Amino acid sequence: MITILSGGTGTPKLIQGIKEIYPEEEITVIVNTVENLYMSRGYIAADIDTVMYTFADMIDEEFWYGIKGDTFTVREQLIEMGTTELLKLGDKDRATKLQKAILLEEGWTLSEIVELQKSKLGIKAAIIPMSDEESEITIVTKEYGEIEFHDFLIKYQCKCEVLEVKYGNVPPSPKLIEAIEKSDKVIIGPSNPITSIRPIISIEGVEEALKGKDVIAVSPFIGKSAFSGPAGQFMNAFGYESSSIGVAEIYNPFLSKLVIDNQDAEYESEIEEIIPNVIVANTFMKTIEDKINLAKIVLE
Amino acid sequence: MITILSGGTGTPKLIQGIKEIYPEEEITVIVNTVENLYMSRGYIAADIDTVMYTFADMIDEEFWYGIKGDTFTVREQLIEMGTTELLKLGDKDRATKLQKAILLEEGWTLSEIVELQKSKLGIKAAIIPMSDEESEITIVTKEYGEIEFHDFLIKYQCKCEVLEVKYGNVPPSPKLIEAIEKSDKVIIGPSNPITSIRPIISIEGVEEALKGKDVIAVSPFIGKSAFSGPAGQFMNAFGYESSSIGVAEIYNPFLSKLVIDNQDAEYESEIEEIIPNVIVANTFMKTIEDKINLAKIVLE
Repeated sequence: MITILSGGTGTPKLIQGIKEIYPEEEITVIVNTVENLYMSRGYIAADIDTVMYTFADMIDEEFWYGIKGDTFTVREQLIEMGTTELLKLGDKDRATKLQKAILLEEGWTLSEIVELQKSKLGIKAAIIPMSDEESEITIVTKEYGEIEFHDFLIKYQCKCEVLEVKYGNVPPSPKLIEAIEKSDKVIIGPSNPITSIRPIISIEGVEEALKGKDVIAVSPFIGKSAFSGPAGQFMNAFGYESSSIGVAEIYNPFLSKLVIDNQDAEYESEIEEIIPNVIVANTFMKTIEDKINLAKIVLE
Repeated sequence: MITILSGGTGTPKLIQGIKEIYPEEEITVIVNTVENLYMSRGYIAADIDTVMYTFADMIDEEFWYGIKGDTFTVREQLIEMGTTELLKLGDKDRATKLQKAILLEEGWTLSEIVELQKSKLGIKAAIIPMSDEESEITIVTKEYGEIEFHDFLIKYQCKCEVLEVKYGNVPPSPKLIEAIEKSDKVIIGPSNPITSIRPIISIEGVEEALKGKDVIAVSPFIGKSAFSGPAGQFMNAFGYESSSIGVAEIYNPFLSKLVIDNQDAEYESEIEEIIPNVIVANTFMKTIEDKINLAKIVLE
């Protein structure tokens, strides 16, 4: 039994490797929900959907959200009639989002909905939202003050100075703590430490549960630049260096091992002063072989 | 300037004829909203959409709702994941419904939304919802007690005895009374007198406005059977015969002329005791020529 903590981009790539070599029914993924939002009457749990679509081999690997080969009929008609959506939702993907909103309205919890959806998509892994309660994330910027996370990403294209990242406290979803406790190993994927992983770790009981476990993290950084997204900006805003050194500091209280990229071998001894067990490997997951190789390392 | 009172099936066929021979920008259609409802996070104003799609030459003439040639990707994916909708919504049609719900949530009135949508669809006629407020229609049946109108139509396939039809009082939409007052002629299309036309006429001020006008109605009945839908059951529930005689009685307080079908010529003198001015014509609108011929008669 393993548990993976995941955001929406880097970690799903690692999951593609893990699911090739580890029994899917023994994998639990705990997914960040802090960026969830209602849009166009659907409920967007982007990271959850990306994890689901990854397991179901449906993920659009160009954007790491949405379904590959999806059509955009509803979106195009909405635009034709004067309504433009911030996110580009395909038709099938919209059904996933609409069903979540329909069932939430009927009183289902997010955990129950994800359980239904992942089963219908034929997924054997457990996929657990970090919380069934709405959490909010707000980015405090120098230029525009407090803005929504999706506005930061899309409207402002991350082109502003981040002063602070705020998110509220939410309770763990029912199976979260138990999943960690039952696991032989916990894997923290190469997702954004501040906006994807830290929200999960901040939930009451999670850090305590992690402390007794074999916890291995894959750094999302190579050198001083993040693989994708605005991870660097966020790291700096929290007072961490935007590098694997910063990652080591953030995860230090509960981390057993940290995987850093070959290109960062020069920092190995510096990081080992924080986390004694550092593994240097290729963390740049371009091909399925890269993903499987990295999966082998974290599962070892 | 003419105003047409419309429901969702018979009248749009007549509109197809009228728009061929009368300037579209001088047509106002007042549409029943009593059957509107939220479904799958969209707002379904079925009669309004049918009228819009009719003017835009997009209507699916097989079902008289939805858009011809539409795809069903969202619906199919919803079903795949376990959510079946009572109404079969196509993708483009769903965009119309979603946009209504999005804009209602943003505080737009239904009139404003319809104004936007019909403009975007290139429609020059005015399309006015009878009311901007939610109205409800409930069918009281012998077998199942009080049921929703859409359940009556779809779930129970109209197969129950109707004891009563209930709908609440709603205020007129802002342009409704003025549209009637400005018109040279008001046409009541061959829609269900009880569930489509009577809700419009029951709105405060409408019957008074109609009384001063040249009002011509096309009966939806041939013999004792309605063209389509459960009109007969409803007529009986209200104590009217389900025939053109019943229609004459319902519209009597304000009607100038009634068009009945050739096949009902035998009832002409009986009906003329109620409405002095009866026109016998082909009201069965199968071809575009039928529709134009009937349009010529009502416009004369």
